[in-house]
Amino acid sequence: MSKKIAGPEIERLVQLLARVPGLGPRSARKAVLALLKRRNELLIPLTEAMQQAVDKIAECPQCGNLDTVSPCSICQDPRRDDGLIVVVEEVGDLWALERSNVINARYHVLGGHLSPLDGIGPEKLNIAGLLTRAASGDVKEVLLALNATVEGQSTAHYVSDRLAPSGVSVSRLAQGVPIGGELDYLDEGTLAAAFKARRKL
Amino acid sequence: MSKKIAGPEIERLVQLLARVPGLGPRSARKAVLALLKRRNELLIPLTEAMQQAVDKIAECPQCGNLDTVSPCSICQDPRRDDGLIVVVEEVGDLWALERSNVINARYHVLGGHLSPLDGIGPEKLNIAGLLTRAASGDVKEVLLALNATVEGQSTAHYVSDRLAPSGVSVSRLAQGVPIGGELDYLDEGTLAAAFKARRKL
Repeated sequence: MSKKIAGPEIERLVQLLARVPGLGPRSARKAVLALLKRRNELLIPLTEAMQQAVDKIAECPQCGNLDTVSPCSICQDPRRDDGLIVVVEEVGDLWALERSNVINARYHVLGGHLSPLDGIGPEKLNIAGLLTRAASGDVKEVLLALNATVEGQSTAHYVSDRLAPSGVSVSRLAQGVPIGGELDYLDEGTLAAAFKARRKL
Repeated sequence: MSKKIAGPEIERLVQLLARVPGLGPRSARKAVLALLKRRNELLIPLTEAMQQAVDKIAECPQCGNLDTVSPCSICQDPRRDDGLIVVVEEVGDLWALERSNVINARYHVLGGHLSPLDGIGPEKLNIAGLLTRAASGDVKEVLLALNATVEGQSTAHYVSDRLAPSGVSVSRLAQGVPIGGELDYLDEGTLAAAFKARRKL
């Protein structure tokens, strides 16, 4: 991108697209060309969809999900179990769990995990909101569905400690061999967790 | 993407972004999350840049380049050599040649290459416009800078035949070992071309 190509508008579009995760400077250029070439089928609808997102989509003040209604459609859904809050790091995790179609509860998005080296302490995550919700009386269980990484697990420990005074039951996802997983390809940590948590048949 | 996530607006944005080359369904979801999370720094500026592209950028009626002015800034540039037209398949090729900074001529974008199996015959490419321009009197040489692929080269042969009656000189890019290329990693076709076109030192 050392040389200007065709006008500052295209240049700026390439630079902004290159900041989208999954695209780099080179693929952003390809993407811009494809967008301009498929103006009516792709560029215009995508621009409209993004404008809709700008205008309508906001963070749910209750759980941190992203939606066009506020509170979000999950928080508003009367069929969801008020007794269980599933805590996730990011909205993407919430989406992944929703796709799995097994959870019929409320969510709470922390907005990341604790990372002291990056300056992300408890005050940067939406932990206060979770404590308020957990203390509301309806909630019986908080499931900490955080990533099985060092950061995710230390965040889970911290949140669990903070939840202790509220008296709600705190749980975490089971760890073990993923469905379809071949033992030969799994890391030792996963195998050790699966062994320790083995179940009687 | 089997299950709806959070509202049709997000869903539609994911689906449209997944059609951008370089992104798939999974990376489009990640991209949408990143856009929504970085609303002010990324989503809004990118949406504005795309709206600008929709409003302002059009195909140059003369050469097929994409620009905000019409004819495009290259066609309007008085310092460019009117005697040479560089013919390319796509606007991306034009950009690549411009980045190389060695061409100070006019361009002509065909809009693809001949591909009878895909139903792309000469009438689908902007060949008529090229013949008109080549016959204008100013043009002395047409450089067919088409891809060194089977389709690119057969398109070059076809265009060259069509240009013959106009009497302009028709050339193509040199073929050989790319700068920095290691012989061990080059295909036999490139090596054969480099051998045949060898030059005296």
